[in-house]
Amino acid sequence: MVGDVPVNIDLIRAAEARLAGHARRTPLLSSPFLDRIAGRRVLVKAECLQHTGSFKFRGAWSAITALPADVRGVLAYSSGNHAQGVAYAASLRGLAAVILMPRDAPAIKIANTRALGGEAVLYDRATEDRDALGAGLAQERGLELIPPYDHPQVIAGQGTAGLEIAEQARALGVSKAEMLVCCGGGGLSSGIALALEAEAPEMRVRTVEPEGFDDVAQSLASGTVVTNPLRSGLCDAIVTPAPGRLTWPILQRLCGPGLVVSDAQALRAMALAQERLKLVLEPGGAVALAAALFLPGQIEADTVIVTASGGNVDRDVVLRALAMGESDAEC
Amino acid sequence: MVGDVPVNIDLIRAAEARLAGHARRTPLLSSPFLDRIAGRRVLVKAECLQHTGSFKFRGAWSAITALPADVRGVLAYSSGNHAQGVAYAASLRGLAAVILMPRDAPAIKIANTRALGGEAVLYDRATEDRDALGAGLAQERGLELIPPYDHPQVIAGQGTAGLEIAEQARALGVSKAEMLVCCGGGGLSSGIALALEAEAPEMRVRTVEPEGFDDVAQSLASGTVVTNPLRSGLCDAIVTPAPGRLTWPILQRLCGPGLVVSDAQALRAMALAQERLKLVLEPGGAVALAAALFLPGQIEADTVIVTASGGNVDRDVVLRALAMGESDAEC
Repeated sequence: MVGDVPVNIDLIRAAEARLAGHARRTPLLSSPFLDRIAGRRVLVKAECLQHTGSFKFRGAWSAITALPADVRGVLAYSSGNHAQGVAYAASLRGLAAVILMPRDAPAIKIANTRALGGEAVLYDRATEDRDALGAGLAQERGLELIPPYDHPQVIAGQGTAGLEIAEQARALGVSKAEMLVCCGGGGLSSGIALALEAEAPEMRVRTVEPEGFDDVAQSLASGTVVTNPLRSGLCDAIVTPAPGRLTWPILQRLCGPGLVVSDAQALRAMALAQERLKLVLEPGGAVALAAALFLPGQIEADTVIVTASGGNVDRDVVLRALAMGESDAEC
Repeated sequence: MVGDVPVNIDLIRAAEARLAGHARRTPLLSSPFLDRIAGRRVLVKAECLQHTGSFKFRGAWSAITALPADVRGVLAYSSGNHAQGVAYAASLRGLAAVILMPRDAPAIKIANTRALGGEAVLYDRATEDRDALGAGLAQERGLELIPPYDHPQVIAGQGTAGLEIAEQARALGVSKAEMLVCCGGGGLSSGIALALEAEAPEMRVRTVEPEGFDDVAQSLASGTVVTNPLRSGLCDAIVTPAPGRLTWPILQRLCGPGLVVSDAQALRAMALAQERLKLVLEPGGAVALAAALFLPGQIEADTVIVTASGGNVDRDVVLRALAMGESDAEC
């Protein structure tokens, strides 16, 4: 069923119409202090201010509002942000939401999923097969699976962030830029790439991943899908094994080369986002900003736009980031 | 000269036209978690996302763009946020900005003022007379003084936040609400009150101050201006001795009763803003949210709107807030 829906700009525009008045139009922020560190203009799409603290609400709302009216409920699996987006979107629509989550996801994400109305079912990343568990639950309880990225309506929903970016950049007089996107399975990256292909064709979309989880960068470099070993990492929101079946062809056609940052760089970017943008980011939501700030030699454009894609972070990680950023206080 | 300009809705609308495309239109945020704590709907005007990290840029830009074209430069005195707003607004207009700041202002505010192009001149709050120093500098160097709140164009600039709030609340279907404003000298409170009188007359504006600095609450209660002893406090951005000459009549006519929160409540609100809104607030910018969350018995309306008016805070205060908020982690 999913495979029958072409993922293109029309699907994104249709999602935009369904999201109007429900998703937040997040601001495109900047700071002269960040421009100085990066050596170029830096614009930050603050998706951490989206409902449930990440861009994932867009894809969730898009997918759920595209379901038939008689659906009994939805099922999602994710490290947390997708789960929160699905739980909240489903609760706003009066639908049940069962969320299959790894037992080692940050405590705040599990608690939030439950508080937002989701039924959290936990599993062990190392010993259990998430996909098999999910398929069983879906069949048993008659739920529609909303996958975190490999779904046309999810990609279309994330792409609405790209439509906003194109319009907001245009209002600032920016048509040429490198667009850096925090990348896990590629839902946000591919959605934004399709939106900018139509609305800002002079922008180049580049994925940003954490070291050790750079399956997309390696796949883009080699021209064939490369897989990471499945394990957990600091940037838990974007720790994925490989680009998706639907996202990969879009990434390959429109994106690259991929960028890779260290955990330390992600933490320093978190500290600078706090200090200079007044934004709370999670590590996985800070990797694009980290690339803009700390990899200047790998970027060519005068303007770089980054997604600050999520802010759902445990307090101890914020404390670690603020300690890391100590030396940047007077930047 | 200043006394000749009436402070009214027309002045605010004119300021809005000058701010268009220069000040940020900040989002009105919310979180189901905060609604649950407050026991009512809470909408948060995120002015910490304004240029220079506080609403003060609005008033600064409004005042500076209203100056004659041949002005040589501007002078400002403040605990920091106003100074940053004036320094940045002046630098964007190609004007010199001399900033008279207390020596004990947070280090980040002094450094930021300088980095934004301002010339920071430091004085001792206890032993030196700020107003006399400022008047001397203005005369000596031919600078226009931009006071932090007692100036028609500054009040008008801050009032533009009120125009946005009225429009954003209307889009959410909200016409009746209590509007809580973080209050120092009353520039933001009086500007928002004038804007809402015209655009959302069913909203009631109430000032929020920290304990020990509740000159406005006491003045509103007694009907006559009450003065605090001049000293420093955690909520440094809103530690002022008394309502202003221009702001007081507006506050008295349109606002009240004033609310008062403890430093501990401001710190807990900061922690919850980080966790639930992904916003970095300073203590003085968190007092209105603190009142909404922790003084439910003193609020009547079903919806409360608060200004999150600034986010310029030293790291050690953020760490203190995150430690204070520990017990709210599972709220």
